[in-house]
Amino acid sequence: MSGVIPLFLAGLCFLFLRPTCCTGSRILVVPADGSHWINMEEILRELHSRGHDITVLRSTKSWYIPNNSSIYTSINVTMQEDELDPDFFNKLLQDAMECRDFQPSIGTFCQEHLITSLLGNGHEILARSAAAMLDDPVFMKKLHDEKYDLMLTDPAMTLGVILGSYLKLPMVFNVRWINNGEGHLTIAPSPVSYVPVSGSELRDRMDFLERTKNMLHYLYSFCEQQFIINPPYADLLQRHFPPGTDLLSLELAADIWLVRTDFVFEFPRPTMPNLVYIGGFQCKPSNPLPVELEAFMQSSGEHGVVVMSLGTFVSAINDQATEAIAAAFAELPQKVVWRFGGGKPLCLGNNTLLMDWLPQRDLLGHPKTRAFVAHGGTNGMYEAIYHAVPVLGLPLLFDQFDNLLRLKVRGAARVVEAKSITKEDFLEALRDILETPSYRHNIQHLSQLHRDRPMSPMDTAIFWIEYVIRNKGAAHLQSAGFNLPWYSYFCLDVAVLFGALIWVFIWASVVVYKILCCRGRRRKIKAE
Amino acid sequence: MSGVIPLFLAGLCFLFLRPTCCTGSRILVVPADGSHWINMEEILRELHSRGHDITVLRSTKSWYIPNNSSIYTSINVTMQEDELDPDFFNKLLQDAMECRDFQPSIGTFCQEHLITSLLGNGHEILARSAAAMLDDPVFMKKLHDEKYDLMLTDPAMTLGVILGSYLKLPMVFNVRWINNGEGHLTIAPSPVSYVPVSGSELRDRMDFLERTKNMLHYLYSFCEQQFIINPPYADLLQRHFPPGTDLLSLELAADIWLVRTDFVFEFPRPTMPNLVYIGGFQCKPSNPLPVELEAFMQSSGEHGVVVMSLGTFVSAINDQATEAIAAAFAELPQKVVWRFGGGKPLCLGNNTLLMDWLPQRDLLGHPKTRAFVAHGGTNGMYEAIYHAVPVLGLPLLFDQFDNLLRLKVRGAARVVEAKSITKEDFLEALRDILETPSYRHNIQHLSQLHRDRPMSPMDTAIFWIEYVIRNKGAAHLQSAGFNLPWYSYFCLDVAVLFGALIWVFIWASVVVYKILCCRGRRRKIKAE
Repeated sequence: MSGVIPLFLAGLCFLFLRPTCCTGSRILVVPADGSHWINMEEILRELHSRGHDITVLRSTKSWYIPNNSSIYTSINVTMQEDELDPDFFNKLLQDAMECRDFQPSIGTFCQEHLITSLLGNGHEILARSAAAMLDDPVFMKKLHDEKYDLMLTDPAMTLGVILGSYLKLPMVFNVRWINNGEGHLTIAPSPVSYVPVSGSELRDRMDFLERTKNMLHYLYSFCEQQFIINPPYADLLQRHFPPGTDLLSLELAADIWLVRTDFVFEFPRPTMPNLVYIGGFQCKPSNPLPVELEAFMQSSGEHGVVVMSLGTFVSAINDQATEAIAAAFAELPQKVVWRFGGGKPLCLGNNTLLMDWLPQRDLLGHPKTRAFVAHGGTNGMYEAIYHAVPVLGLPLLFDQFDNLLRLKVRGAARVVEAKSITKEDFLEALRDILETPSYRHNIQHLSQLHRDRPMSPMDTAIFWIEYVIRNKGAAHLQSAGFNLPWYSYFCLDVAVLFGALIWVFIWASVVVYKILCCRGRRRKIKAE
Repeated sequence: MSGVIPLFLAGLCFLFLRPTCCTGSRILVVPADGSHWINMEEILRELHSRGHDITVLRSTKSWYIPNNSSIYTSINVTMQEDELDPDFFNKLLQDAMECRDFQPSIGTFCQEHLITSLLGNGHEILARSAAAMLDDPVFMKKLHDEKYDLMLTDPAMTLGVILGSYLKLPMVFNVRWINNGEGHLTIAPSPVSYVPVSGSELRDRMDFLERTKNMLHYLYSFCEQQFIINPPYADLLQRHFPPGTDLLSLELAADIWLVRTDFVFEFPRPTMPNLVYIGGFQCKPSNPLPVELEAFMQSSGEHGVVVMSLGTFVSAINDQATEAIAAAFAELPQKVVWRFGGGKPLCLGNNTLLMDWLPQRDLLGHPKTRAFVAHGGTNGMYEAIYHAVPVLGLPLLFDQFDNLLRLKVRGAARVVEAKSITKEDFLEALRDILETPSYRHNIQHLSQLHRDRPMSPMDTAIFWIEYVIRNKGAAHLQSAGFNLPWYSYFCLDVAVLFGALIWVFIWASVVVYKILCCRGRRRKIKAE
């Protein structure tokens, strides 16, 4: 430990020699709703504590983003959520689970198709919202006159990207996934041979068939970008931006991408100087539990406790799966804390406590916690890594399959299919996680690596947000490749030149050879 | 400034929560000689101050690396320098300057060819040195028994790479250039369309002809790697490593690459999670000058001082250029401090002080310094950036042209050709640098960006060296792409499968069409 101190003191001198900071800046935030908001709110709280003046653009009918907050001022507008059925995600879950009936390798495409249809609908709503704002000169003048110093947005919420570009604000993204079909051009070259496309449920080491599958996913997501995501915005961008502007070219204007992952969790992949990895930035040491919950934890004795939560949106899976899980829990010597929003399962054991909401961070950090049964959302995965709790994954939607795969290949998780779950399978997997020491050892190793950083992920995020404010952008970190047409980016024009030169050389050689042969023959004939 | 403090205090908590450090580790260092040693020594001094036990493998006849040092123990071996003519670099300089007679775009290839011949010779000597060590079981057993925790080496010194791999030590590289012909596979994908190949004297924004030139440089350096650099090691690697091992595959074993550049200076390019950018790590605030030199600086009055140095290896250029420079200096109202190793120039003015060696860092940080006339070595360029002194470049060899170009395109330097230099040209360029405010403004902007980092480059370097020691490597940061054969890396096998499927589909369609047509005709004939 002593060795850290000189490095730290040197850091002290360096920090105080750095350019002065930028407290009191005016930050416009366009967050995405749902679990993404949980992440954004953590950052906003930190920015607020550092004296920044924050304005959040939110939907009038937002699911999670409060209108009144002590850390920001709200601007209420009409957005996506207003047109969505509140039970939308539970319905989507039913459809997604049907997909899992297929052979897994085809199931990923079926799920991707489901998400595509959701995306298409979502982007149409978002494009209409954006058009309504940009077409409203009074509203836009008001935003413009506020003279914000920064746009902080989640690019899943394209509205923020469009507004930030229109207002010509320095822009920081708070983002989870980066390798869509155009990842190659928006982020960094992403060879399909070892960069798994999101949704593919593949890892970085792939055999021939897996690489083929990854290529199909890449082509699919490329087409999705071209034919599903881009078109709804075409008219809006044509009216308000220079010719040739599309959604991707606006994303390229981002100065810094704060990516909510790190390379302890994510597979190593090419990246760019303006990508900053902040995975686990929301993790903190646990706080004491409420008295009753603490008593329940302590009552578990040496066996400890299993914590189960399936995330923000989806509070219950189907009855059959629920009963199987409850029955399996009932046979454990451990106690169980289960975040559960439905009716009480018939097979519920005495050892299981159902809760509408649970203090997940504090439970995972509790010394009695032995395993985490989770859907595989990014936040939960990082909390499991931070607190070194092995995971039994029950993925349902979106990136949850990919997230759990990342822990599984590192020996820190097992995954069961929610659709076809039986009491026996679930119990066997759970006992394996609880009784095989390697799961705990492996997640402890990941936890150690995750915490071994020069600077905490939250401080890193705040540093780069303030860096962009201080320096009015970070254009010097943006790739020059983004300005090239695709044929120049891939050097196809140079290849054509080289091909033409080689062709001319061969053609000239043949012509010269023929001429020489011809002369030779003529001489021979003359000589004869 | 106050805003930095909470971030800093949060960092304090985080640092103390991190895994314990690893003072007292045993580090084997194989440095490269010359200016590269200056860099390595700075890091070793820092590692020594943190309690590490350092052993340096050096040539018995090393140019710069002392045998006796208070910060490390030496192991003396026979190496490259023993077989090189001490005046080698001055001769190389003469040849290199001849190259500059060509039209610049061709001159870069001529210079590259010169360096290739130097490389070929150097690698043959290095391969012989490595073979002598690996074939000596007593020497290797002694190294093995020392149970080092880390190999720290400059991969320009392939000996370190080979020894580190052979001894299976965790390995950290301290490296300047990364985009050789195989940069694509060793580091990160490096699109030729916007990643200039070293030695090409190109920037990241290229027109068609420049991209063509860059592609030629890329192909040249690819061939250089295959036909000049790899062959001398083939026999050695075949005898001591698994089949198929080549120099590049050994380099891929590095856990962390400490790259001596940053993206304030370097053009943004794809990078990998195990590349850490430490450009300017050797820069420090300046110390007071010796009394006489300080008096000379103060005697310059409001005009200030010009500092000139052409680096470590080459202390003098040809007489004609020297006289032109001396005569130009004599016409300046400024004073001049010139690091100069030859005979006193005839045209030397009273305002010019010649010195065999000068405290460059302290001079550049002196408030009287107005401009830096430099050859463009990386160390000097970072010191100019750190102290915000505009540069007049006089590049001579190696990467100096590329380095100066990086400052020039940012408006912080001008470049003159050493070969064809005249008093008038040099004076005009020097007056421009001294009198046009934009050069100073631009280098001040670069300096501000360079210093605006979450952690100083030296602390970053030390953190990652100790990270590799603590975690016994950093395999989780290494790309899976490196394990693929080239045709799989580029997905050519998948492309062949897709091509074949498309071909089969077209063929089957034609066959079905023909069969249908045939039947149709038969029916028609029957009907008739």
